[in-house]
Amino acid sequence: MRTVNAYAATSATAPLAPTTITRRDVGPHDVAIDIHFAGICHSDIHTVRAEWGQPNYPVVPGHEIAGVVSAVGSEVTKFAAGDRVGVGCFVDSCRECEFCRAGLEQFCERGMVGTYNAVDRDGQPTYGGYSGAIVVDENYVLRIPDALPLDAAAPLLCAGITTYSPLRHWNAGPGKQVAVIGLGGLGHVAVKLARALGAEVTVLSQSLKKMEDGLRLGAGHYYATSDRDTFKKLRNRFDLMLNTVSAPVDLAALANLLKVDGTLVLLGMPDKPLELPAGALIRGRRSVSGSLIGGIAETQEMLDFCAEHGVLPEIEVITPDYINEAYDRVVASDVRYRFVIDTASLRG
Amino acid sequence: MRTVNAYAATSATAPLAPTTITRRDVGPHDVAIDIHFAGICHSDIHTVRAEWGQPNYPVVPGHEIAGVVSAVGSEVTKFAAGDRVGVGCFVDSCRECEFCRAGLEQFCERGMVGTYNAVDRDGQPTYGGYSGAIVVDENYVLRIPDALPLDAAAPLLCAGITTYSPLRHWNAGPGKQVAVIGLGGLGHVAVKLARALGAEVTVLSQSLKKMEDGLRLGAGHYYATSDRDTFKKLRNRFDLMLNTVSAPVDLAALANLLKVDGTLVLLGMPDKPLELPAGALIRGRRSVSGSLIGGIAETQEMLDFCAEHGVLPEIEVITPDYINEAYDRVVASDVRYRFVIDTASLRG
Repeated sequence: MRTVNAYAATSATAPLAPTTITRRDVGPHDVAIDIHFAGICHSDIHTVRAEWGQPNYPVVPGHEIAGVVSAVGSEVTKFAAGDRVGVGCFVDSCRECEFCRAGLEQFCERGMVGTYNAVDRDGQPTYGGYSGAIVVDENYVLRIPDALPLDAAAPLLCAGITTYSPLRHWNAGPGKQVAVIGLGGLGHVAVKLARALGAEVTVLSQSLKKMEDGLRLGAGHYYATSDRDTFKKLRNRFDLMLNTVSAPVDLAALANLLKVDGTLVLLGMPDKPLELPAGALIRGRRSVSGSLIGGIAETQEMLDFCAEHGVLPEIEVITPDYINEAYDRVVASDVRYRFVIDTASLRG
Repeated sequence: MRTVNAYAATSATAPLAPTTITRRDVGPHDVAIDIHFAGICHSDIHTVRAEWGQPNYPVVPGHEIAGVVSAVGSEVTKFAAGDRVGVGCFVDSCRECEFCRAGLEQFCERGMVGTYNAVDRDGQPTYGGYSGAIVVDENYVLRIPDALPLDAAAPLLCAGITTYSPLRHWNAGPGKQVAVIGLGGLGHVAVKLARALGAEVTVLSQSLKKMEDGLRLGAGHYYATSDRDTFKKLRNRFDLMLNTVSAPVDLAALANLLKVDGTLVLLGMPDKPLELPAGALIRGRRSVSGSLIGGIAETQEMLDFCAEHGVLPEIEVITPDYINEAYDRVVASDVRYRFVIDTASLRG
């Protein structure tokens, strides 16, 4: 066991504060990672503030982790000390069920082991990336290609795969009309990825405030959902729509923007149930679907794709003492587009 | 123009009563049909009772029409006098849009022309199958195979295609677990069709009252949705679920019965929006979709499939003077499983 510096929440209302946690000894299949950067995901905030149920405090959030391998176990074959690596939303799963075997570990029948606020297979609580180091089984570690800087790569481990996976699953590509609803942490990566995949991209945002950004990131079109004309102009336009907004949205109005056989994919988990417009679905064989991050193999594919196509999140790098202010700014949508914590001061 | 006997509703509250309507002269591309049988679909009741908006009275309902060709226009090549034919939910469409060209006339960009309570391309109101005869363009007429009796074939024109189309679109077949929610007019045909397609079929009904019927019709399993244990036992069970119930259902509970990548298809149009369980979709890449009848080519395919596999709706044949009582019994779910009007007394 090894003691590591971290930032933790001890209650739903207390600010995150410095603390220490322990990391397990490096087992035969483990990779020890010096964490260099950790992205701040909105779900970190939902979790520590108990908005998704009561977490197990202390919570050390962070599932967008980028770092460098410091040591590997005796049986490890995939990684060596010095390798640039990442860890995403989960650090283990049963490895035996049909989904684990199919590379869909996020749907593991026994439940994937979350990178934080979960219980590991050894019975210990998991702690995330707002810390100096982490120990993870090699099968749940990703390789970060040299072309990707570690700081900007971090958010790809959640925001990247969360948007890449549905874009691939529902065949975004040349000739396809893709809408991205919301231009935040997820949305701005979705725009870049959809464009890199060859689709024609439209951003649907509440206002036109970020329009210049949206077009620069790769969108061909940008519309405000506060303007009711948008819903007339874009009727039956899209093959695929990704909803990155967790707040309630007008699903009926949005679904009518889908073509026949189009799909609206929910990525954000709203607090309340949405109202489902049966008629809008029936009158166009449309679908509303959900998608959850992605499996390990697909996450690696996404990182390689981003390296090849120069897809990088837009980030604001902060030090750990700024985490609480950053949280408030994320809630206020005052970040373009992802905070990434430089964890240098937490490393031993 | 020709005068024809019919049963019509003249207001949302008046009982349907005998009347006469006119049918257009047989044009070069038209088929004149002596109607022998017309099924009673729940949407007939919704329409005449103004539950789906104000209709244009008088309404002559009926879009499950089976009969015999009495005359054909000079250019008609597909049909001849004496042919056994059917007419379903629409009698025309634009024929030019991408959907009409793709055999998806039900999604015609300019709107299909409904068999009743619509405006035909000549500007005249359309009147449906509760009548002695109808004149329809040959491209919107179906051939009823000799193996299908006309009375039982009638409900296939709506209930049959409404369930066949999603079963085919979402690949119901050998090795697939299909659930049919609701064992009524649509549901009982869905069970027979899914079984004939080779799927393993489970009925989910409010109670076990119709269980014996369900198993006889081809279901392998039958569960009551009023029993909360059902939702534990069947978790992650189904590839495809068809919801034939128009009343509000517990979508979150139902969606959790889908496998990863499973689809729940809405066929009934509920009065109120349903509550959409984003979490249940996200945690299994599940979909909620809608489906609307089917195109002409697929309707013919369905009729041929039913003839080949001996799939026939279970019907109770009535005379036109029983229509109003039948309506009340449909609303009370007191029919096994479809009323079919013998229109002999309406033929001239």
